[in-house]
Amino acid sequence: MPKLQNYQKSLEYSYAPGLFPSLEAIHKRPKSVQRILISSKLDDTKAINKLRLLCNENNIRIETADRALTRLSGKENIYVAAVFKKQGDELSQDFRHLVLHQPSDKGNLGTMLRTALGFNFKNIAIISPAADYYDPHVVRASMGALFTLNIKSYQNFDSYRLEFNRHTLYPFMLNGSSSLDEIAKRACEPYSLVMGNEATGLPADFSNFGNSVRIEHDKQIDSLNLSVAAGIGMYVFNTFGS
Amino acid sequence: MPKLQNYQKSLEYSYAPGLFPSLEAIHKRPKSVQRILISSKLDDTKAINKLRLLCNENNIRIETADRALTRLSGKENIYVAAVFKKQGDELSQDFRHLVLHQPSDKGNLGTMLRTALGFNFKNIAIISPAADYYDPHVVRASMGALFTLNIKSYQNFDSYRLEFNRHTLYPFMLNGSSSLDEIAKRACEPYSLVMGNEATGLPADFSNFGNSVRIEHDKQIDSLNLSVAAGIGMYVFNTFGS
Repeated sequence: MPKLQNYQKSLEYSYAPGLFPSLEAIHKRPKSVQRILISSKLDDTKAINKLRLLCNENNIRIETADRALTRLSGKENIYVAAVFKKQGDELSQDFRHLVLHQPSDKGNLGTMLRTALGFNFKNIAIISPAADYYDPHVVRASMGALFTLNIKSYQNFDSYRLEFNRHTLYPFMLNGSSSLDEIAKRACEPYSLVMGNEATGLPADFSNFGNSVRIEHDKQIDSLNLSVAAGIGMYVFNTFGS
Repeated sequence: MPKLQNYQKSLEYSYAPGLFPSLEAIHKRPKSVQRILISSKLDDTKAINKLRLLCNENNIRIETADRALTRLSGKENIYVAAVFKKQGDELSQDFRHLVLHQPSDKGNLGTMLRTALGFNFKNIAIISPAADYYDPHVVRASMGALFTLNIKSYQNFDSYRLEFNRHTLYPFMLNGSSSLDEIAKRACEPYSLVMGNEATGLPADFSNFGNSVRIEHDKQIDSLNLSVAAGIGMYVFNTFGS
């Protein structure tokens, strides 16, 4: 087995830090899991037995790897991680998409992936430049939702639009022309909710694409947090759209 | 002037890190601002001039304080901070409340305060044990929303309930008895949305208080992120409630 490296985007594999994300990796993409790392400090017998059983069933090797796990630990201690091979996905022509335009914060990106799975947005386009969605921080913040989603990166928004020209676009903008609660009722699949960058939002010319949407809020705040805005948008389209 | 200390809960003052939160402190609670700290690296002339003008108008001293600002800097560099005196607030008997039961993550707490201001929840109860809402990380994540809100801590949920027995309670729970979109339409002020801890949610007996609410989502995720769930709840009550 090759020596495990610090994660970087150019690697063909990544890490799913934490028990729950590791279990998701084994359940959803068993063939992509190369090995399971556990800490010598892990004393949760139930978790260990569950991992052993699943790894046996799927022919996955378990190894103690304290140093690799320490490198993955941030504020929290990480005692389990899956090493998994990255894969390229294709998005559906028929179903709704979440399009993230240049998201830069890994935690926000992971949270949005988790929310997307919860509200039946299973196809995610990420427009570059953007945080690397295979970064272990993103995988962890997504709670492993990443292993159930189709995710694809695009060099720019035009190449996404060309590939999915049947999708109605709903760019979320502070001065969007329709309010979310009104427009969601009239939405029919396939459509794309388009969310901008944390700090800068979407470029002004996105108001020319499809139907721009605003989430009404009091003027005492400048804007909503990106993952909150994306959560509200997906909830309302999922609940009130047809 | 006394020497500035590292922030801790027992201090009578706290810090609002960043230009935007500092300006919010001066605009909304000018009398509470004790001084403005700036970095010798701050070279944004427009920002400096704006701060000078505002501080002159409000008789607030500006001082260069590189070491104190370095201590406040996390991943990002902080070049401006307001030092402000904490105050005790009282909550309204007549308006809607957001009740946060034992929130532990500072970033989530700040994000929820920012969202609360955006959706007209201006009275916030925080039930102990909880992250300190005057912690500089919370103030920064709130983008200064904290200075416009009334916030009060309670030792336990019972003491909150006793004080506000006219408020209808809506505890958000995974197995809540009513779906959010249905129940929000029937809500009349005064009411309280009650949100649990990030990891553990609300204790099971909260389903006996008022009308428990669930945010419908696909079973492929365990739960939503707390600040996303709180954002969706406040948006829907603010938009569809009466």
